[in-house]
Amino acid sequence: MGGDHGPPVVIPAVLRAVSSLPDNVRFLLHGDEPTLTAALAKHPEAARRMEIRHSERVIAMDEKPAQALRRGKGTSMWNAVEAIREGQAHAAVSAGNTGALMSISKLILRMAADLERPALVTSVPTPRGVTTFLDAGANIDCDAERLVEFAIMGEAFHRAAHGVPRPTVALLNVGSEEMKGHEEVREAHRILREGKIDLDYRGFVEGDDITGGAVDVIVTDGFTGNVALKSMEGVGRFVYGELRAALSGGLMASLGALLARPALLKFRERLNPPPAAPLLGLNGIVLKCHGGATVRDFAMSIQVAVDLAGSDFTAEIERNMRRLPDALAEPASEPAEAVAPAAPADGGATQGVQE
Amino acid sequence: MGGDHGPPVVIPAVLRAVSSLPDNVRFLLHGDEPTLTAALAKHPEAARRMEIRHSERVIAMDEKPAQALRRGKGTSMWNAVEAIREGQAHAAVSAGNTGALMSISKLILRMAADLERPALVTSVPTPRGVTTFLDAGANIDCDAERLVEFAIMGEAFHRAAHGVPRPTVALLNVGSEEMKGHEEVREAHRILREGKIDLDYRGFVEGDDITGGAVDVIVTDGFTGNVALKSMEGVGRFVYGELRAALSGGLMASLGALLARPALLKFRERLNPPPAAPLLGLNGIVLKCHGGATVRDFAMSIQVAVDLAGSDFTAEIERNMRRLPDALAEPASEPAEAVAPAAPADGGATQGVQE
Repeated sequence: MGGDHGPPVVIPAVLRAVSSLPDNVRFLLHGDEPTLTAALAKHPEAARRMEIRHSERVIAMDEKPAQALRRGKGTSMWNAVEAIREGQAHAAVSAGNTGALMSISKLILRMAADLERPALVTSVPTPRGVTTFLDAGANIDCDAERLVEFAIMGEAFHRAAHGVPRPTVALLNVGSEEMKGHEEVREAHRILREGKIDLDYRGFVEGDDITGGAVDVIVTDGFTGNVALKSMEGVGRFVYGELRAALSGGLMASLGALLARPALLKFRERLNPPPAAPLLGLNGIVLKCHGGATVRDFAMSIQVAVDLAGSDFTAEIERNMRRLPDALAEPASEPAEAVAPAAPADGGATQGVQE
Repeated sequence: MGGDHGPPVVIPAVLRAVSSLPDNVRFLLHGDEPTLTAALAKHPEAARRMEIRHSERVIAMDEKPAQALRRGKGTSMWNAVEAIREGQAHAAVSAGNTGALMSISKLILRMAADLERPALVTSVPTPRGVTTFLDAGANIDCDAERLVEFAIMGEAFHRAAHGVPRPTVALLNVGSEEMKGHEEVREAHRILREGKIDLDYRGFVEGDDITGGAVDVIVTDGFTGNVALKSMEGVGRFVYGELRAALSGGLMASLGALLARPALLKFRERLNPPPAAPLLGLNGIVLKCHGGATVRDFAMSIQVAVDLAGSDFTAEIERNMRRLPDALAEPASEPAEAVAPAAPADGGATQGVQE
């Protein structure tokens, strides 16, 4: 029932996904029974792999998380997540209210392996594939331990989602030298570099490495992550607008654009952000699909959920989380005072100001 | 002498700038006298508006700021900044080592009006003009007071550089509601909203507003600012690479690209980041031009320096800085405990995951 469009997008998306997924993948559809039954009426074959679970109410898109927790019981979102806890579903996909989905999921499923809060992970296209990037905005204040947790979760997710045996991991910073950045990122660097967490840790990367594809997984706090993603989104929109304007100014440009139209559409497609962001660290798989998702977007999100359900990434997160207490212990040989003071960004490098 | 190219770029840039600047704009060229004299030999007319100041040494591009301070005296960069303090120059432009330029400028010129450290400001293109964005990476750890200082400096700079009588100012955050973000940004919001600082303050904006042009001046800490700018730079490069690839795949696409070539080049030009970033808050005007600057870039930087020298933006910064102590005083009616806890990003919104 969620998202900007509800069943008119979700049902066609499920029908599309069904056609390409193995027979053993089945669906529970949570929502208004008459609406859902009517939507499935013309598809009796596909409907055999679906079961409708009626719910009287829905969580509104603008409901506050606290309110959603209080009055969420019995809503379609609540029931979808509860079905995971009850062992009736392996994964849930929703295009509904993000904050509510996060709060309800945390309450019902609980966090795995002493993790504190779910992290929102996103996938950014690069010339070679995708960068797994987190936290995308769920956790504003992050200490070093939270950043290390994100590294553990992101690495396990990248392996599960993309089949990369040993993903490379880096911390986002303002330069690659050890003394760069604020205390939290330098302390997380110290912990990850020590090697007690079983990760292929590559040190610090900078903002342009998110789309550069230097490593598989890039970790940052939710404030920086959200700003970086929104900034990149803004550039994408700006560039596309400028390109349109440039290609419609004058006869030659317009003719060129017409001839290159299929190529330009393919190009635009490449820039589309991925439609689904998994909530990492829960005892169960919950995917948040963006509210304005199209049929294609929602179908892709279902595919990601199926891939994750077939992997053991929750177990892998737990395996590495068990090493965390030992990794967090301060080494005797390196007194706390040895931590260098904060250094400015790489030579104060800025957009267009670099040595 | 600075930048990746030195005199072969700087001298033609000065010659180009001279031709379009008023007669009363004159130049001091700091560097190796024989090199500079030879470079000017064929331009006797322009050379009359220049004076060569010999310096034996230069600051290397990879020198650490502390080292540059110790051994910087007598270098071309040092002398260029010193000429401002001595009243011989109104502004300095350098394509040299950013960290060294910042340290040397701070030491020689001192900060204006109780400001703590220079801020690096940059200008980001938008559909309607440019956004003045700071700090671009000079100040990693920023409390609320620093953010308010950036707002004061950025606003005065935007007015001076773009002739906008009353620029609008906003704080970068992960959502527009009052409870969003970390403590520093919420406290800065409280101070600016109170109106004791004379600014047209518009509240919080998000990452995509940097290129969206929602307000004239956007303020953030140097860590977030550097990451956002580098991330946006990365997207620009990625998009351009993808566009090239799309337009060279197949005959029709290539033909289209050929016809649209002038439009595509103009488009690319629009995306170029501005070549110069002023160091704000000093008793004097110092511009950092990026190391890889072309002749055109360096000439544009000179033009910006001339515009700033003709404005009274340092005086305006001082005017508003005098109001800061009063603005920082905690209001009696709002106890410190009333500060709300950190809230996650707007519904945990992410790239492609928004409600």
